Amino acid sequence: MIHLWKDRQDYDLPFLLKFENVSWYQDGIVKILDRRIYPIRTEFVDCRNYQEVSKAIKDMVTQSEGPYVAAAMGMVLAINEVKDRDKYTILEYVKVAAYHLSHARPTTAEQMIGIVNKGVAIIEEALKLGKTSDELVEAAMTFAFDYINNNYRRYTKIGRLMAEQIPDKGAILTHCFPGTVVGTMLRACKEMHKNIKVYCAETRPYFQGSRLTASVACDMGFDVTVISDNMPAYTLKSQNIDVFISASDVITQDGHVINKVGTFQIALAANYFGIPYYVTGTPDLNHKDISHIVIEQRDPQLVMESMGVRVTKEGVKGYYPAFDITPPEFVSGIVTDKGIFPANHLKEYFEV
Amino acid sequence: MIHLWKDRQDYDLPFLLKFENVSWYQDGIVKILDRRIYPIRTEFVDCRNYQEVSKAIKDMVTQSEGPYVAAAMGMVLAINEVKDRDKYTILEYVKVAAYHLSHARPTTAEQMIGIVNKGVAIIEEALKLGKTSDELVEAAMTFAFDYINNNYRRYTKIGRLMAEQIPDKGAILTHCFPGTVVGTMLRACKEMHKNIKVYCAETRPYFQGSRLTASVACDMGFDVTVISDNMPAYTLKSQNIDVFISASDVITQDGHVINKVGTFQIALAANYFGIPYYVTGTPDLNHKDISHIVIEQRDPQLVMESMGVRVTKEGVKGYYPAFDITPPEFVSGIVTDKGIFPANHLKEYFEV
Repeated sequence: MIHLWKDRQDYDLPFLLKFENVSWYQDGIVKILDRRIYPIRTEFVDCRNYQEVSKAIKDMVTQSEGPYVAAAMGMVLAINEVKDRDKYTILEYVKVAAYHLSHARPTTAEQMIGIVNKGVAIIEEALKLGKTSDELVEAAMTFAFDYINNNYRRYTKIGRLMAEQIPDKGAILTHCFPGTVVGTMLRACKEMHKNIKVYCAETRPYFQGSRLTASVACDMGFDVTVISDNMPAYTLKSQNIDVFISASDVITQDGHVINKVGTFQIALAANYFGIPYYVTGTPDLNHKDISHIVIEQRDPQLVMESMGVRVTKEGVKGYYPAFDITPPEFVSGIVTDKGIFPANHLKEYFEV
Repeated sequence: MIHLWKDRQDYDLPFLLKFENVSWYQDGIVKILDRRIYPIRTEFVDCRNYQEVSKAIKDMVTQSEGPYVAAAMGMVLAINEVKDRDKYTILEYVKVAAYHLSHARPTTAEQMIGIVNKGVAIIEEALKLGKTSDELVEAAMTFAFDYINNNYRRYTKIGRLMAEQIPDKGAILTHCFPGTVVGTMLRACKEMHKNIKVYCAETRPYFQGSRLTASVACDMGFDVTVISDNMPAYTLKSQNIDVFISASDVITQDGHVINKVGTFQIALAANYFGIPYYVTGTPDLNHKDISHIVIEQRDPQLVMESMGVRVTKEGVKGYYPAFDITPPEFVSGIVTDKGIFPANHLKEYFEV
């Protein structure tokens, strides 16, 4: 697995394994790092067809930008499944695969369609050129790795820009697991010799903040403190937090941020205390505003238990909206690969 | 145990056992219902001297108004411990007991001093009158039960006033376990035929919302839904919550509400959405403003685990401020036994 990445990547592998929502295709299998249990255990979910990749995405095996990488790798798997069939069958199959992979989670379906459709276009082009079955798989691999490498270059830029917003010896509050960006940002902090304190909201019911963000920041040698999700407002003030930082699942063109549920109430509190809130991500061409945003509802059972232990009695229900929406007036800046933009001036992003 | 209560209480015992943070003195032991595990298991912590009562309060065996009841019962135990000694020793001992019981938790020390000192005064008076050792214990018992009965009468009034603020078929959001008041409020809702929906924020790290509030509301036949602590802002809007309700640990005379951490960020969100926030409790004569409020810090380990399961890796720290402070501008009304007062006009409470 390592040399597969090494051949195609220009970045360091230990870093990658720690921060990326790693998934890769090899010999007819897509392996996805199971972020539901990492870093307590490092295990991979093996997917032998694209449907299993789609299910893994739906089942939260991978989070943050992980589903996009998994979907790109799922496209490689899909083509491998039918590479020896006729052109028509191949194209139809990868189109259906593209649909299912991109719709594994409703909230991010629009963004994901854009990615997997690039894969479909590349396959279509390769079929037209009469490529061999192995060449088709190779073309899909190139598509997937180009996607990952481009992403990584963007995240490196974004991480550096984000790090520049944090004062030396400052303190930041994060929510959920901002994926690769938290890695590139913390690495940039190290390079800039910024010895910052990191506070992580635990992010129930999955504890992405406690399990993932806190662990990777701690591994990098930072002073890391976990708080429960009812503590951000108090912590922002009492611990002199300088910046609240989150990633985003979708940023609409009019500056609304769709991110892990809880983001909005932290942004509201940060705004009240005059603490800036920076969001990393890219405005979404598919969403002019929030009118077509669908907030994904996840299994209510997860809220009724914690780390597998039941916390409610029989008869009590759960409610688990996965995301919330933060209006642009509570966002200090959208940190993109093209610079930092005010949330209400995102059109400029597409004009740069 | 039952007849002990029955002799002295005018309210129904099943209700009491469900909602009260029950503790009582009997035969040289104070028994405290262990709310850390209730309702999963109904167990009592036995305290054989006032120091053990103080420790139980500190260790969160009982919550909400529970510590006050436990402290009052702890005073009965203290007098029983030294009832056969000389007057001077008895008085000194109960004074020391009063100090330790009231200071078991820093945030509520001021309020508790008022209660236990009444006990000291009653003992002092009984000693002056040359009462026998059994009469001394009886006097302390009367003091403790008078305290509980007065409280219960107050809570019944408060619960009814609170219920009047909820529309028929309305939906409320609660935080933490508002103790007896949630019981008296829900009972009043039943009497008024208000078929309300109850949403409970789970209240990490102890899950008082999931374990206690949700359970008792469910037992009373209400439609109860639990959410994690990152979901209140989203839920307030998406589930059309009519009222956010919390109890209080301290209400300062200038209208600041000190309550379980998380209250403030929910109040902030409720305010943003124009949803009223009502607080039950009594303004505290000992706190003119927040200048002498000490926010209790609890064991950080509790935030690093959940239901006994570790969620952070070695090296990551925890932070556990137990309470936060909601300024009066975010409070729609303080629901007291004398009526509902605007948070910034609490002086009127003492003038009624």
